[in-house]
Amino acid sequence: MKKKRVSIKDVAREAGVSIATISYVLNNKKGESISDETINRVREAIKKLNYVPNLSARSLVSKRSNLIGVVIPQAEAGKEFMFYNPFYGEFLSSVEYEARKKGFHLLISGTEADQKYIQVAQNRGLDGIIIVGIYPDSFFQELKQCQIPIVLVDSYCSDHYFHSIGINDRHGGYLATKHLIEKGHRKIAFISGMVKENGVNSNRLLGYKDALEEYGIDFDEKLLYLGDTNFEYGIKAGARLANSKNGETAAFATADILAVGVIKGLKENGLRVPEDISVVGFDDVYLARITDPSLTTVRQNIAEKGRQAAEIIIQTIENEIKEKRDIILPVDIVERDSVKDIN
Amino acid sequence: MKKKRVSIKDVAREAGVSIATISYVLNNKKGESISDETINRVREAIKKLNYVPNLSARSLVSKRSNLIGVVIPQAEAGKEFMFYNPFYGEFLSSVEYEARKKGFHLLISGTEADQKYIQVAQNRGLDGIIIVGIYPDSFFQELKQCQIPIVLVDSYCSDHYFHSIGINDRHGGYLATKHLIEKGHRKIAFISGMVKENGVNSNRLLGYKDALEEYGIDFDEKLLYLGDTNFEYGIKAGARLANSKNGETAAFATADILAVGVIKGLKENGLRVPEDISVVGFDDVYLARITDPSLTTVRQNIAEKGRQAAEIIIQTIENEIKEKRDIILPVDIVERDSVKDIN
Repeated sequence: MKKKRVSIKDVAREAGVSIATISYVLNNKKGESISDETINRVREAIKKLNYVPNLSARSLVSKRSNLIGVVIPQAEAGKEFMFYNPFYGEFLSSVEYEARKKGFHLLISGTEADQKYIQVAQNRGLDGIIIVGIYPDSFFQELKQCQIPIVLVDSYCSDHYFHSIGINDRHGGYLATKHLIEKGHRKIAFISGMVKENGVNSNRLLGYKDALEEYGIDFDEKLLYLGDTNFEYGIKAGARLANSKNGETAAFATADILAVGVIKGLKENGLRVPEDISVVGFDDVYLARITDPSLTTVRQNIAEKGRQAAEIIIQTIENEIKEKRDIILPVDIVERDSVKDIN
Repeated sequence: MKKKRVSIKDVAREAGVSIATISYVLNNKKGESISDETINRVREAIKKLNYVPNLSARSLVSKRSNLIGVVIPQAEAGKEFMFYNPFYGEFLSSVEYEARKKGFHLLISGTEADQKYIQVAQNRGLDGIIIVGIYPDSFFQELKQCQIPIVLVDSYCSDHYFHSIGINDRHGGYLATKHLIEKGHRKIAFISGMVKENGVNSNRLLGYKDALEEYGIDFDEKLLYLGDTNFEYGIKAGARLANSKNGETAAFATADILAVGVIKGLKENGLRVPEDISVVGFDDVYLARITDPSLTTVRQNIAEKGRQAAEIIIQTIENEIKEKRDIILPVDIVERDSVKDIN
């Protein structure tokens, strides 16, 4: 199955030039007298053979790079700030700490699936990759060609080829919604970033519906507020909620960063939390304790998620585990001050 | 000036064994019949020559790794979570975005100065390093040996060997304090993480004293609350402030993450912000807008700091700039809802 890697020698043969010439062209070295015609011939050969220069070039003494790639999705709305959602910072800190203890370093990329991350992985000689979030299926298919150990985090990738680690998002959505129902709420807004197939949000929405069904409450599409998973959209949704004609008394926001925005948006429109509207979040990042009122939320153990992601990838690299691992970490609800009992 | 790098050949000669043997020992390969005696001889030779295996081993086709190291200090109180202060996440996101646009990747380390980061830098063949915060002088001295382009961020390193980028922290401290004084406050708590020599906090404290002096207010050591730059210490300081006998009507906290903790600690002890105590923060991270009341704070342009740090390091790597750069970015005050005018 493993294809032979195209080498610089193959390219030299194809272009009919020396290896040194290829090297000069690749490095764009100035002062070397190489004709444009030769440069073009080399570039064509590179393209034809799909040659990937092995920049990281593992040394003679080790075939390992001891480098783990971490792919974190770009924020949906902005391109620059992948860490605005503290979930990623907490996760990454934990991965870094675990990896460092075991002599590995992290290569961080806020990448998009179409940016040929696979080429990066090969150029860098990554020993393993931790991928957070969901990507197009074609990306996962290409990743299989890599022969690099991979852990998917919070992905509901359907073909189960890679290690995976996640939480029971559906159960988390169920717990949040059930908690609100038991406190007497029946009109519960569902506020979320994009609901993509096989993503955490679509599963949290399923859990929301499970709870409604269990208590005989009709699902109402008008109660869905779907945008981006960030503070700004939370404010917008909070403002819309404050002016809603649907009679919501509560909201389940699928991320704490969203929930704090919702609280802000509600307050800016003259509503109090939890007196007028109750809010439940998801994640239990440190924001949940910082915000006022402090946030009732679905807790997931982010640090443990990061630690286990690093551990699985390192154990796979070191051949300590051969079989595929699928880990689901537990969730529970943490009661703080953002929900009012209206029974 | 450049010392010749010790090679695997030198080690083999010193130990009187083959290069392959050195390689086996370095890789801890099992199944190879190498005697303990030989292993010990190799290890002694490695130690004696101070040999650093070149794991990243730049390939034949490029002397560049296109890899930039980013060193972020560990949180003062905890070891695991370097990103709890959103300042680091915002900074890093911006560095990553700029670097990625230019074809570089980031190697992230939550390192300590005593962890031989320099060895990591050499092993990895880093093209450049961005170092955030302050470290012992000996660390900076060793870094000079590296011959790797380095940018120091928010360091007041005294010997001006490296590129540097920062803000005028003293002026920021002055602006925060002056703002409170002009709103009628005279007993102003100074709440901060550790005040280390040549650090940002010591400079913000100087600015605090400048403002007091300008308005003829005596400096009072009892108004200093010094701990760690994190949310937890903020809560503690807020609680102490609420029960203080010193008559403070305001506080200047040297980081937003601290300020939101202070607000929490004050509220938990029955005081309102800004009605009872006014609070000014520093940084203008997104928390400043999230917290309730939203925070009046000293704004620094964190994204621009990250962008310029990446730009300087890449321009140096690419020989576009040769002379040393020292950049000071401006600060100003952003008025929100956490300060009361008591004139």
